[in-house]
Amino acid sequence: MRIQATDERHYLVEVFTKLGFNQDDSQLLADTLVDADLRGISSHGIQRLAWYRRMIKEGTIIPQNKAKIIRELPGSVLVDANQNMGQLATVLATQKIIEKAKKTGVAIAVIRNSNHFGTAGYYTRLALEAGLVGVALTNTRPLVVPTNATQAFLGSNAFAFGFPASPHPFMFDGATCVVSGGGVLTLGGNDEENSNYKGMGNSIVIELLTGILAQGSISADTVSGKHDFSQFVMVLNPAFFGDPEVLKKDATSMLDRIRQLEHIPGKEIWVPGDREYRLLAENKEKGVTIDEKTYQEMKEIGTELGIDVP
Amino acid sequence: MRIQATDERHYLVEVFTKLGFNQDDSQLLADTLVDADLRGISSHGIQRLAWYRRMIKEGTIIPQNKAKIIRELPGSVLVDANQNMGQLATVLATQKIIEKAKKTGVAIAVIRNSNHFGTAGYYTRLALEAGLVGVALTNTRPLVVPTNATQAFLGSNAFAFGFPASPHPFMFDGATCVVSGGGVLTLGGNDEENSNYKGMGNSIVIELLTGILAQGSISADTVSGKHDFSQFVMVLNPAFFGDPEVLKKDATSMLDRIRQLEHIPGKEIWVPGDREYRLLAENKEKGVTIDEKTYQEMKEIGTELGIDVP
Repeated sequence: MRIQATDERHYLVEVFTKLGFNQDDSQLLADTLVDADLRGISSHGIQRLAWYRRMIKEGTIIPQNKAKIIRELPGSVLVDANQNMGQLATVLATQKIIEKAKKTGVAIAVIRNSNHFGTAGYYTRLALEAGLVGVALTNTRPLVVPTNATQAFLGSNAFAFGFPASPHPFMFDGATCVVSGGGVLTLGGNDEENSNYKGMGNSIVIELLTGILAQGSISADTVSGKHDFSQFVMVLNPAFFGDPEVLKKDATSMLDRIRQLEHIPGKEIWVPGDREYRLLAENKEKGVTIDEKTYQEMKEIGTELGIDVP
Repeated sequence: MRIQATDERHYLVEVFTKLGFNQDDSQLLADTLVDADLRGISSHGIQRLAWYRRMIKEGTIIPQNKAKIIRELPGSVLVDANQNMGQLATVLATQKIIEKAKKTGVAIAVIRNSNHFGTAGYYTRLALEAGLVGVALTNTRPLVVPTNATQAFLGSNAFAFGFPASPHPFMFDGATCVVSGGGVLTLGGNDEENSNYKGMGNSIVIELLTGILAQGSISADTVSGKHDFSQFVMVLNPAFFGDPEVLKKDATSMLDRIRQLEHIPGKEIWVPGDREYRLLAENKEKGVTIDEKTYQEMKEIGTELGIDVP
């Protein structure tokens, strides 16, 4: 079924408010889920609500807590999410480094003691709106089996990267793993000949920049003991390197050339971002798609909290 | 055949000096090639010498030119390699951002008008020697076919990442593509089901941070018209986020846990860096391996320049 994004947003703000988040935080959390659903990234949209609610009930997430800046340098910030949602701390951190990068050219944030932060792309889009290039990383629960191993250890570790282009930005946003018949694998699959150790390398890089730098749990340990995720965000100012309009034109021209390469008959060449911006336009008009299970969960939560479901 | 690294170095310094590089630059260029050969990365060692010599003869590389810093901010530097070797400009740039990152927490360099810079890992190791985390990227000649395309367009675009660990650093260093029966493909191979568009995404990210940000050629255009490569280096100071010894211990402990996971019988789990540091120890003792074709080229160059071949 489909519901209009404005109705989804209204419902979510009410739910988050009832769950103990203040008005601003509720608006922001709702926006991250609606944004994901609009872009067709349903796995990071309202589908996550029941899980969030469960973590709040268990005390894993504490909605009243405020994210805190622990330490700052001209190009860096270390943020404690204070056991609240990752979205709240990461927006705070990203806004902070956007200001810094305008002066230094580049800035990074590490967020510790955090939780799920929605799509990684949300934060690179904040950077893009400020005219900057953005990178966002998070560790996750352990799902991925390293090369030659027979047990999961690494996170599905998301990587997002946004760069200004027309008619929409280059927007890469996804897990660093692949879902295959045999399970969840590093990019390259389960075959050493496909260089899957390179996929493992990418996964470990994210473990190092998130859980290790943040001194939080690595993905492998988020299911036993303390459940915390860590995030890393970087923004850089393209205006330092050249006229932003020229850089945007050059990027657009390269992406268009890729889209127009000779291709396999019957196939199209899409570049990262094409799918999500097409769905964004479509879903803004037609509404976002909600699967049956998620709609049932929305109704249960609505009943529990006394909120009408759209 | 094998030759001792000291002999290789001596030969290379003499060659580079005769080709017109000054003493310091010759020493540095020799070091980057010997270092690659010692680490078993022969494709980026003395194998490249004949190509470098050819580009100097053609005027693509001008050994007398000096790399210049075009612009600086507290966390960024834009460097013009001035049509000389990439190694010279990238070492200059990396030294510069190492100093900056100590104050800002993070710093980046973009190098334009450059050429081949050896292994990307060389620059992340400069960062590691200064106690910092390093990232290095370069574009290359176009070898890689985007998802669903039937012609090469993207570079094999190298990505290196170094993070302090014991007994050696985590050291990821390689092309972002895979060599397969059908040609050179993005990570994930030529099958959409293996999420090869994610591999394509990684490749394009590097195109954007190198050729586009530097306003140089994108990989696709380095074989027609102007032949220039562009590079991107980032260093970050882990000491801003926590005690460097603790971070190193935590990284080591995670990597050891990966190496010791349950695994496929008869297979070992290696993490990035294990192979190259093992070969480094072995080759320091036994000498570096030189293939027959490369040794012939060394002899030809030796005869041409009046230099004894080891």
